[in-house]
Amino acid sequence: MVRVKIPATTANMGPGFDVLGMALKLYNYVEIEETDEESKIFINGEESELDYKNHLVYKTLTKVLDNFKYKYNGFNINMEECNIPMSRGLGSSAACIVSAVVSAGKIMNREFSKEDIINIATEIEGHPDNVVPATVGGMVISLMDENKINYSKVKVPEELKFVVMIPSFKVDTEESRDILPKSYDKKDCIYNISRSSMLISSLYNKEYDKLRLSFDDKIHQPYRKKLIQDSEYIFEKSKEFGAIGEFISGSGSTLISVIHKDEEKFMNSMKDILNNGKKIWNIKLLEPDLEGVQIV
Amino acid sequence: MVRVKIPATTANMGPGFDVLGMALKLYNYVEIEETDEESKIFINGEESELDYKNHLVYKTLTKVLDNFKYKYNGFNINMEECNIPMSRGLGSSAACIVSAVVSAGKIMNREFSKEDIINIATEIEGHPDNVVPATVGGMVISLMDENKINYSKVKVPEELKFVVMIPSFKVDTEESRDILPKSYDKKDCIYNISRSSMLISSLYNKEYDKLRLSFDDKIHQPYRKKLIQDSEYIFEKSKEFGAIGEFISGSGSTLISVIHKDEEKFMNSMKDILNNGKKIWNIKLLEPDLEGVQIV
Repeated sequence: MVRVKIPATTANMGPGFDVLGMALKLYNYVEIEETDEESKIFINGEESELDYKNHLVYKTLTKVLDNFKYKYNGFNINMEECNIPMSRGLGSSAACIVSAVVSAGKIMNREFSKEDIINIATEIEGHPDNVVPATVGGMVISLMDENKINYSKVKVPEELKFVVMIPSFKVDTEESRDILPKSYDKKDCIYNISRSSMLISSLYNKEYDKLRLSFDDKIHQPYRKKLIQDSEYIFEKSKEFGAIGEFISGSGSTLISVIHKDEEKFMNSMKDILNNGKKIWNIKLLEPDLEGVQIV
Repeated sequence: MVRVKIPATTANMGPGFDVLGMALKLYNYVEIEETDEESKIFINGEESELDYKNHLVYKTLTKVLDNFKYKYNGFNINMEECNIPMSRGLGSSAACIVSAVVSAGKIMNREFSKEDIINIATEIEGHPDNVVPATVGGMVISLMDENKINYSKVKVPEELKFVVMIPSFKVDTEESRDILPKSYDKKDCIYNISRSSMLISSLYNKEYDKLRLSFDDKIHQPYRKKLIQDSEYIFEKSKEFGAIGEFISGSGSTLISVIHKDEEKFMNSMKDILNNGKKIWNIKLLEPDLEGVQIV
């Protein structure tokens, strides 16, 4: 049996649209056991009625095994302790894919390197934004160059904490993609180039006063905010309560505030605000996960 | 008498169009002496026939003094040892402006902070790209936010050297501005956001293998290369000779290669190439200046 621990990930951080992602200390645990019978999906150890053929872990696992011509009958896939909410912009599908790729390697007794995992998982997921941080942990800049994925890990100061606000509603992924322009004014391009560069440099230098403006963005968030009810108001309040940055996680619906002190006070103030709205929000104080996917 | 030492600066480094600049160990020395007579411009201590009223140092100096209502008759301005070539994309006008601002402060016995100098000089120059590194030294990310200039200094690894190739010809600044598109495809924006972020992170992490692709750019250089004869060929050769990056300095005509080892070999190979072309190129191996403008 393989047991894999895989972190949630946020992508599109601030000005780093399609570029900047980070793993968070919020985990799914996936257990996979090879059997002689037909495959089954378990949730927290209990057999579920889900059709395994449509389950992303099963589909990914068997796709990888088939590619390596590995013969099998079936698998018991146990989604044990799944803390990453689905369809909220926290990388739940990348988590399924990466954990399945890692499991496939273990089942075949092949040692997949982090690079192998990233390449296989990105081919399946279609983009590296969540796959790379889920695999290697930490905050990561990733880009494709001639079909090769390159990444650089950014050192995040230890005192930074991430307040993850997960609403009860989803955002339609297609709508959130279609709402973005196809082209941008030169000044908006430069705006994001300068903010993303400043963001990376401020993190290395711990220049918290510069982080505030480094999280600004003109490429995706001004358009996507409309799709997330109350996000404008929540961001305003977050700023007022002392956060040094806010951003939409992935394409939403989760919102994240970055704080560097007075976490308890900040959490209480935000909870008050969120509980007074019309929607239900789940709020978590998280640190970056620094290890990425692990066989445990 | 005030004597000011001011570094050359490169701007628009790679993907950091309008954002990323750096001071270089190539200096102008400007001496300014207040007199009771009409102003004069000296070059290397010899009186020149230049009309002082049109000289950028004189114009900037008196503009600042006038703003502070300081009374004067005239100045002897000695452009002593001017190593920064004019109109080649190495910040010669920012050097004039910043050195004049610093001199004005000294003449009035006012202590201008680095922030003061940046703000006054940027207002005159129109953009902070060269002014900021000329003032504070080093490699700098700068941006304007609500009319305030913000910057972050980037730590450049000591082993990085900059091969500065200055041609005998100029590029028309207006043409090099007009040749750029007004808007860009989303994928080109993302291209530069990812490269500039990767560039900053690779510098902090000394990931030289990642610098190679981090200097790529889709915003300005593909258009401006056409205006600089042989630049495509020189960049190809630079890559072949082991440089880890190349870029057009400012809006040209100077080209810069980034190297991290075998400098003598690289210099000799590039000299061979440049000497075989139709144009005259002056080639210098330079390190970043880390201090910026100094009263000496």
